[in-house]
Amino acid sequence: MKPCIVWQTDFGLKWGAVASMRGVCKQVDPTLECVDITHEIEQYNILAASRELIYVEPFWPKGTVFVSVVDPGVGTDRRASVALLADGNYVVTPDNGTLTHIFYEIGIREIREIDESVNRYPGTEHIAVFHGRDLFAYTAARLAAGVITFEEVGPAYPAEEIVIFEEKLIKARMEEDTVKGVVSSVSDPFGSIALNVLSTDFKAGGFAHGDMVHVTLIDQGKVFFEEDVLYAKSFGFVPVGSPILFDSSTNYIELGINQGNFKEKYKVQEGQEYILQLKRGIPQVVS
Amino acid sequence: MKPCIVWQTDFGLKWGAVASMRGVCKQVDPTLECVDITHEIEQYNILAASRELIYVEPFWPKGTVFVSVVDPGVGTDRRASVALLADGNYVVTPDNGTLTHIFYEIGIREIREIDESVNRYPGTEHIAVFHGRDLFAYTAARLAAGVITFEEVGPAYPAEEIVIFEEKLIKARMEEDTVKGVVSSVSDPFGSIALNVLSTDFKAGGFAHGDMVHVTLIDQGKVFFEEDVLYAKSFGFVPVGSPILFDSSTNYIELGINQGNFKEKYKVQEGQEYILQLKRGIPQVVS
Amino acid sequence: MKPCIVWQTDFGLKWGAVASMRGVCKQVDPTLECVDITHEIEQYNILAASRELIYVEPFWPKGTVFVSVVDPGVGTDRRASVALLADGNYVVTPDNGTLTHIFYEIGIREIREIDESVNRYPGTEHIAVFHGRDLFAYTAARLAAGVITFEEVGPAYPAEEIVIFEEKLIKARMEEDTVKGVVSSVSDPFGSIALNVLSTDFKAGGFAHGDMVHVTLIDQGKVFFEEDVLYAKSFGFVPVGSPILFDSSTNYIELGINQGNFKEKYKVQEGQEYILQLKRGIPQVVS
Repeated sequence: MKPCIVWQTDFGLKWGAVASMRGVCKQVDPTLECVDITHEIEQYNILAASRELIYVEPFWPKGTVFVSVVDPGVGTDRRASVALLADGNYVVTPDNGTLTHIFYEIGIREIREIDESVNRYPGTEHIAVFHGRDLFAYTAARLAAGVITFEEVGPAYPAEEIVIFEEKLIKARMEEDTVKGVVSSVSDPFGSIALNVLSTDFKAGGFAHGDMVHVTLIDQGKVFFEEDVLYAKSFGFVPVGSPILFDSSTNYIELGINQGNFKEKYKVQEGQEYILQLKRGIPQVVS
Repeated sequence: MKPCIVWQTDFGLKWGAVASMRGVCKQVDPTLECVDITHEIEQYNILAASRELIYVEPFWPKGTVFVSVVDPGVGTDRRASVALLADGNYVVTPDNGTLTHIFYEIGIREIREIDESVNRYPGTEHIAVFHGRDLFAYTAARLAAGVITFEEVGPAYPAEEIVIFEEKLIKARMEEDTVKGVVSSVSDPFGSIALNVLSTDFKAGGFAHGDMVHVTLIDQGKVFFEEDVLYAKSFGFVPVGSPILFDSSTNYIELGINQGNFKEKYKVQEGQEYILQLKRGIPQVVS
Repeated sequence: MKPCIVWQTDFGLKWGAVASMRGVCKQVDPTLECVDITHEIEQYNILAASRELIYVEPFWPKGTVFVSVVDPGVGTDRRASVALLADGNYVVTPDNGTLTHIFYEIGIREIREIDESVNRYPGTEHIAVFHGRDLFAYTAARLAAGVITFEEVGPAYPAEEIVIFEEKLIKARMEEDTVKGVVSSVSDPFGSIALNVLSTDFKAGGFAHGDMVHVTLIDQGKVFFEEDVLYAKSFGFVPVGSPILFDSSTNYIELGINQGNFKEKYKVQEGQEYILQLKRGIPQVVS
């Protein structure tokens, strides 16, 4: 059984871009299966691509070939690469920051730059604007099908050269009874906002289900949310319409509203940097 | 050949939720195939989920495993269940009303509550907000792959305990020459509105293609549409822009506008309860 | 290995239409694989369907069965057909103009009208509004599965009877140093606009990367864009925010803005006919 190719892009599904990439894979090997994460990543938002990838990657069988194409620099000198992860999965992507979360949370065993002279879809040498199809799909399919080995992708380069965002963007700082972090994503369609705080770190820092947590959110120096919020295991522990802090399905802490939409209510925007403080309050018993 | 797993949720496709559920299925058995109905059911609209399911279910091979997750009560005490239908298909779903149309139109042979102690994706015991991945995907995959039997899902419970909406919401009443019902769904993107009137009931009640039907639609006591409308087999039998009553692809009667959008023109909203009267008029010959 | 069935429609993915078509395919043969181009073609926009198809078709293995359903005339006397292309692929579609680009650029070897008396999904004889499921999906699946031969689709008819749009809509005219054409599509989500000018024709006409081209766009007699624009191989050769003319991934010339959205900036609308002039200017060296 060959591994699946699992995709995410900012191409949208209103036109044929995704289907032409799939056609290329099927030409390489008609038995290959392609599955989508999403094609609606915010355009050019590389950090969002990095986050989506870490959300899904751990749930796939080892050996899976992920392809992530959010690529504002297509056709310029950014590297087109394949990373072999510490857990045995692959990520085929422009090396422009997409690998950030993977780098910190999973680890990268080796990274190679795609050698265009052998790993480009034949007949597209004159096209510079669609590496998604002509380099990434073609290389991912050849790797997944066993047509080429990982070594045959192209030359390896040092892990220190991988383009990554600063760690503080994805991991909060714990200070005594306070967590200082940022809003790291906004989960559509439910409108909860993910904090860059791992549940395990949060609990290690002394927070427990049933705690009231003093939550402060700051946008460019101005506080726009400040409330005591219950930390519990699911929405249903507060009344409909009330805010709640909970362990999300991604192992990060999220802030939401039971059957409401935190994002819309407080006009939180994807991609903007909000400062976050979580301060331990008085414990409270949950029924 | 193992059965397909066929999905519907209100999760949207802008993030990785759906792909992480698929990864779990592939971990259970890499040969399983997942197919989507939609992930854009109106949020928390359980009745819409029930309706979508009955629209698609009859067209799949027997043995198919459907998964429907519109689950405002995730993590509370609503049951997580698997229903074996009278026709041999399965539905994996929170038992919160999703099974309504299936119950009345197909029938449920047996229903079982998922035993979390054996049928939960390992390592997610501390996560309460994503049963779609941790219970439903995992159980559906194990059932479709033959890892567990239907009996091994968990304990059966009486069919009378299944949560269903009132029958009047999904089936109109015939009274002499008048049908009294409700608008049961709004079909995007064409904007026809489905009535809770089966074509077969309508014809048994004496209506025939070529009839002019006096159609009245009432919103909270106020009539907002009242016209004589031709009942015919397709749009093309009235001029572009004219209303038409026709047998939809779901076997229900729909009201639309030839190459127009009834929903937008009359501002009909999904989920609202409109009263409907269809009164037989003078027969007319269609060319 | 059976060929894939590759789909495009204007049905949207908010309801079960697409999934019911797939179910029909799986009933014909559970080993068939269905892949989507898009289900968000602008409603009733047959020319857009034709364009999307030519964008994707060349990238699939020969023998692929494409299904395209943008069908404002469903249930009327337009033909339901299967075309065998010059390259060995098939297109299953209402014969209403969808085959235009395929006709000019790939060629049609033979076309047959679907014989409803044998190639209709059993039990749907009374339904006239969903040929996508009842005729096209069923016939495509039987053809892809080898249940029927191409000859068994139904009677052949002369290629001259195929419904196609005028060639000038899809192919620009070269006049000395000027190209006169139309805007042929608007590429979401990046907002570049495709011109009906093949890169090969453009280069044969004497234009080369590095040229400044005097671009004029006219909407109903009024010029709304007139600028000297660099013709280069990718976005990155002009500053962020500048317009650029480049060889798109479809082999047509596109006009875009580096990391911007030409469509939104100049309010270019899909489906409207804009006149286009490209006039050669003074060559310039690109670094």
